Amino acid sequence: MKLKLAMIGGGQGAFIGAIHRIASRIDDHYELVAGAFSSNAEKSRASGLALGVSPDRAYTSYQELIEKEKQLPEDERVQVISIVTPNHVHFEPTKLALENGFHVILDKPMTFSLDEAKELEKVVKSSGKLFCLTHTYTGYPMVKEAKQLIASGKIGKVRKVYVEYPQGWLSTFLEGEDNKQASWRTDPGKSGIAGAMGDIGTHAFNLAEYVSGLQTTKLNADINVVVEGRKLDDDGAVLLKYDNGASGVLMATQIAAGDENNVKIRVYGETGGIEWQQDIANTLLVKYLDKPTEIWRTGGGYTSSFVTGNMRAPAGHPEGYLEAFANLYKNFALTVKASIEGKEAEAVWLDFPGVEEGVRGMAFVENVIASGKSDKKWTDFVI
Amino acid sequence: MKLKLAMIGGGQGAFIGAIHRIASRIDDHYELVAGAFSSNAEKSRASGLALGVSPDRAYTSYQELIEKEKQLPEDERVQVISIVTPNHVHFEPTKLALENGFHVILDKPMTFSLDEAKELEKVVKSSGKLFCLTHTYTGYPMVKEAKQLIASGKIGKVRKVYVEYPQGWLSTFLEGEDNKQASWRTDPGKSGIAGAMGDIGTHAFNLAEYVSGLQTTKLNADINVVVEGRKLDDDGAVLLKYDNGASGVLMATQIAAGDENNVKIRVYGETGGIEWQQDIANTLLVKYLDKPTEIWRTGGGYTSSFVTGNMRAPAGHPEGYLEAFANLYKNFALTVKASIEGKEAEAVWLDFPGVEEGVRGMAFVENVIASGKSDKKWTDFVI
Amino acid sequence: MKLKLAMIGGGQGAFIGAIHRIASRIDDHYELVAGAFSSNAEKSRASGLALGVSPDRAYTSYQELIEKEKQLPEDERVQVISIVTPNHVHFEPTKLALENGFHVILDKPMTFSLDEAKELEKVVKSSGKLFCLTHTYTGYPMVKEAKQLIASGKIGKVRKVYVEYPQGWLSTFLEGEDNKQASWRTDPGKSGIAGAMGDIGTHAFNLAEYVSGLQTTKLNADINVVVEGRKLDDDGAVLLKYDNGASGVLMATQIAAGDENNVKIRVYGETGGIEWQQDIANTLLVKYLDKPTEIWRTGGGYTSSFVTGNMRAPAGHPEGYLEAFANLYKNFALTVKASIEGKEAEAVWLDFPGVEEGVRGMAFVENVIASGKSDKKWTDFVI
Amino acid sequence: MKLKLAMIGGGQGAFIGAIHRIASRIDDHYELVAGAFSSNAEKSRASGLALGVSPDRAYTSYQELIEKEKQLPEDERVQVISIVTPNHVHFEPTKLALENGFHVILDKPMTFSLDEAKELEKVVKSSGKLFCLTHTYTGYPMVKEAKQLIASGKIGKVRKVYVEYPQGWLSTFLEGEDNKQASWRTDPGKSGIAGAMGDIGTHAFNLAEYVSGLQTTKLNADINVVVEGRKLDDDGAVLLKYDNGASGVLMATQIAAGDENNVKIRVYGETGGIEWQQDIANTLLVKYLDKPTEIWRTGGGYTSSFVTGNMRAPAGHPEGYLEAFANLYKNFALTVKASIEGKEAEAVWLDFPGVEEGVRGMAFVENVIASGKSDKKWTDFVI
Repeated sequence: MKLKLAMIGGGQGAFIGAIHRIASRIDDHYELVAGAFSSNAEKSRASGLALGVSPDRAYTSYQELIEKEKQLPEDERVQVISIVTPNHVHFEPTKLALENGFHVILDKPMTFSLDEAKELEKVVKSSGKLFCLTHTYTGYPMVKEAKQLIASGKIGKVRKVYVEYPQGWLSTFLEGEDNKQASWRTDPGKSGIAGAMGDIGTHAFNLAEYVSGLQTTKLNADINVVVEGRKLDDDGAVLLKYDNGASGVLMATQIAAGDENNVKIRVYGETGGIEWQQDIANTLLVKYLDKPTEIWRTGGGYTSSFVTGNMRAPAGHPEGYLEAFANLYKNFALTVKASIEGKEAEAVWLDFPGVEEGVRGMAFVENVIASGKSDKKWTDFVI
Repeated sequence: MKLKLAMIGGGQGAFIGAIHRIASRIDDHYELVAGAFSSNAEKSRASGLALGVSPDRAYTSYQELIEKEKQLPEDERVQVISIVTPNHVHFEPTKLALENGFHVILDKPMTFSLDEAKELEKVVKSSGKLFCLTHTYTGYPMVKEAKQLIASGKIGKVRKVYVEYPQGWLSTFLEGEDNKQASWRTDPGKSGIAGAMGDIGTHAFNLAEYVSGLQTTKLNADINVVVEGRKLDDDGAVLLKYDNGASGVLMATQIAAGDENNVKIRVYGETGGIEWQQDIANTLLVKYLDKPTEIWRTGGGYTSSFVTGNMRAPAGHPEGYLEAFANLYKNFALTVKASIEGKEAEAVWLDFPGVEEGVRGMAFVENVIASGKSDKKWTDFVI
Repeated sequence: MKLKLAMIGGGQGAFIGAIHRIASRIDDHYELVAGAFSSNAEKSRASGLALGVSPDRAYTSYQELIEKEKQLPEDERVQVISIVTPNHVHFEPTKLALENGFHVILDKPMTFSLDEAKELEKVVKSSGKLFCLTHTYTGYPMVKEAKQLIASGKIGKVRKVYVEYPQGWLSTFLEGEDNKQASWRTDPGKSGIAGAMGDIGTHAFNLAEYVSGLQTTKLNADINVVVEGRKLDDDGAVLLKYDNGASGVLMATQIAAGDENNVKIRVYGETGGIEWQQDIANTLLVKYLDKPTEIWRTGGGYTSSFVTGNMRAPAGHPEGYLEAFANLYKNFALTVKASIEGKEAEAVWLDFPGVEEGVRGMAFVENVIASGKSDKKWTDFVI
Repeated sequence: MKLKLAMIGGGQGAFIGAIHRIASRIDDHYELVAGAFSSNAEKSRASGLALGVSPDRAYTSYQELIEKEKQLPEDERVQVISIVTPNHVHFEPTKLALENGFHVILDKPMTFSLDEAKELEKVVKSSGKLFCLTHTYTGYPMVKEAKQLIASGKIGKVRKVYVEYPQGWLSTFLEGEDNKQASWRTDPGKSGIAGAMGDIGTHAFNLAEYVSGLQTTKLNADINVVVEGRKLDDDGAVLLKYDNGASGVLMATQIAAGDENNVKIRVYGETGGIEWQQDIANTLLVKYLDKPTEIWRTGGGYTSSFVTGNMRAPAGHPEGYLEAFANLYKNFALTVKASIEGKEAEAVWLDFPGVEEGVRGMAFVENVIASGKSDKKWTDFVI
């Protein structure tokens, strides 16, 4: 059984929408049957056609999509809606979709503001519908394994977290060159109060909390606008305190000229450490005080079901970013199906980011920008 | 427009069939509508159902599939057939499919014997249908770029080729332990005269000729059965001579205990060299006599259309094995569609392995096994 | 001509003294002829004997060494004194040596306090003698090349500096286990006010300023004592501001369980970046906005004289830590010899850390510890 | 006590002589007191002076050196002679030195021909003097550890050996450009019958036998002269059979354009494998069938005395080629001293290459060149 999927946003020329669609197809749990790909009827229809969506289900607004789909017979109606619009068009369609009985997959950061995020949390809870926020990095098998190992005590009590997310693509004033991606991401009207911190800082923040199992309690941020003329931050570094007393460093920048997107996390505990980086995503380094560092590999056969349940190819056949993204879609699908069938979802399936991570992410955005502007050294992480 | 796809083989429990299906889905050019997944009717139907294939198109033999599909109206009928059976069931279904008007995607090695391969070449040519052999490694963007760079003279005349394909999974007598993959791959009745040489040696051979642009003229092989009781080679090393006078070394083994599947190729010319390995698939090293080695990356923006046309995610978001496989499917689909529409296919689309590569691959199998048994040092590469 | 060398500290069982001696021997510019290896006469003599030092020149105090050596005829007398004692015994012997006409090589951090450091700066200047502080990492050829490239504008105006120095060896309460190295380094009476910040933070600080060519103006530090019972910091992270407006992050820790000593620096400018790490010390990555990253190598032939003048083995024969240390000794020796011969020293020779770097290093120690204790976010870097 | 050392060859402008001298100094076991640095008296004296050798002990021939030194009182006389001349001047001085009571360190390959090698073996044995052949790669701590692990059964019975030594520096006709190193190494009158095979093939051959603990029984070689006009081989690949039934591949080339000198060895056994490469010399990968690969590091604390006894700096401070070379000198010195003192040498000290390795190396040269010319596939490895 495939789940019937609709998409809001992601028309021709968009970047992340195409990624979501690939992710939805890889494991064959979804069938894209509807979409509001563009507010321009012609564009929406053309986008839909190219994607095999029937013209009568290529809508011109999310309101129309939700309203019309709701009226369809249950066995035709969309079950899951993917929302891949810019940040300022996250909250309203998500709320409307949930309130009208649709499960939702939403691109990060969750909302335009923390207030919206908290409001959305209530909506998710009251709706009883399932919700997934696409923090892709938590979809990597070895990121999941790192979390599991740490949770199992493999490295002892966590003491230190280093997470970094260096990009270089905004090293120049790209938003002045008719670059669609650069334009909305640096536009406060579309991105919100944060640029790099919202775009990639939230990924790093989420990754650190996910892997370490810790929650941030205080932060101390240096937030910069490096490129002249830019309206939002393009660089930042944040010192962190966690609820168990550990400390951390988060580095996220979009002006690391020559760097691409090599997300990396290191967590150290009392008796060992773990290290993962996206460039060699199928590898996890596990470190010990008195033994050789081990190279854990996705196909190794000694990993938990959080790895084996999130990979497709045999040992030594690298999977990457699209498969990590697909793991979010797959696990969400299996959870939705279990819900439909009244069965209990497995722990591996439930391991996708939800609305709580979204609220924490938006709290990060607001707290980190506030800290960046503050003369106070340490500010409480408030939600 | 999606191409209608059928699959022969690849029922529940099979490995490579699932990979083919993912590859077919990633870029959304195919719709799986039929299959002969198993000779057991129940199993075929169950496999089909799980894949969204209507029960009346889940056949129990390739003959039935081809016969029945042929009778369907053109707009319902399957257009492309994927054949993912063990080697001994490659030739007949492929021949029948081609002769009945279907385009074919076939798993490697192409046939059970060189004779079959040569016969198949004739069939492909006389049928006028399109044919793709899934030598996956040629689907990697950076492997394609390596070929293009060398063809453009970037490293001068090629002098030396090193290609290696080390695996460790057959280090023990796995075929004695009810392992399906190990069993047929080490069974002369199913694999043919070669084990490792057919399974992975052909990949290495193909990769070397593809990237270097050279053709093998002589070879000198050391072929071994290392694990006691095994019926086919599980290890080999081959010295090679190429048509431009260059020499090469090919190493393929399945008893490299602890190794996974890290295919690697290095080619050296008069003025530089290239190096690629699957573990860091999005990277190509380009070497020079008097300049720093360069790290070419898939998203770098300085690559040819053979890279940009074969990637999906932006710079620094790694793609892997499934995407390389998907590139074969995508390029084949675009070529088939161009053919259907009477348009000319682009060079990037046409860059998939075909029947000539298949014939050369089977010639490699026969030549290398013969050389392994021969006392003669250098034997001509004969087809 | 070899320079006559004496050593203060570094008796049997010491660690860094042995490293200094190897460094002094590699390029054959020194002859160890005297030493105050221990305050115990027997131990000093035994240490000296094992090192080929005549018993009458194995002194029991630095005062005795300086006094007696001064009385020797000029052609017998020590010319350079290496001081390798713990931090609290740096200032006095260095001052005395300089004031009595000896050139000095001193282990880092320069002194016990900033006040001592500033006083020492005056002594160095008034003495007219040469002084080298062994910030080893600036002795690596590729660190030097990074500095030269940045100074030449290769990456444009510097915007961001990341420097990290993770160690794991103090993850447990090693000072409770009769470990000599751990004991003095965690003892405020011997190390001063800082533990990790003085021991390795100063290296990271110096490396960042050396490579970037920038000077720190503000800092914001998180300084931690992680291991229970420890008296000095064993972990810290520091946000930095530089005099050209760039920002930086410095991470130094001794509780990164499983890590060894992999110092790493990344500097990004407007048009590119550099990356160096000690584990692959003979490599420097040079990054660009629109071109492939380049792997610069010590033996590449395209580097400056700051590389070729600081290496010994041909391309591809790795040199390491001891050679980096030896480069400090070599360059200091060549500078001393030039001074003796009244010649001008070459720029490559003069590229060793001196008293100004020492003052800045001690200022870092005091500023960073103060910042760690302060509620103020950004504090000026004051000397 | 330092050993009195003389050097034959290695005058100003020579490459390997300088490396030997650094190696001799690092651990302070030698004092260079004499030399026959050049047959030109003026040059020999100048070279000696620059090295601190008294003019009356800067000889103009090895004969003079040996004769005169022999006449000196025992406590002044040279004890060890290092011979660093081109291959054609290895045998005679070594023989004369041994027969006159001097211990000898000789650069590889041992002699000009196998006949000389066998003759030298007799001389060494009859002389009762100690002899070291500088196969540097066996001086790396992690190469030693690999040997020890394999000998201890860590990876089970060895099945496969891959050893490679790619260089690119002879990619052009360098010997036509007044390059001293290129000239003698490609000159049959000075190098003997082999170029690359003698220069670097012998290193690879020795490394493979040393690490694996196996002896070669058969070989099958492809030997090439790639660069036009060159008189000796500059490229080769060799298939090998070992005495326990294992097989191997040896690749050595000097025309791998863009490559430097990254010697690499992989050995696979029934239950695991090891991998080492010079570029990351302080690391040894240890592989298992069912466990994660381990990254063994020189300073890890879990290694044998063959590591701890052959390193100087603490964990994470990389040592390199010069230290590997120094380990040969150090171990030889400790063995010579033990011999002088009538004590038994420790196993770690005795782990340096000797005359038997030299004979096997020269047998490799002759066998490999003969095999290269032969039409016979497998030829016995004969001595």
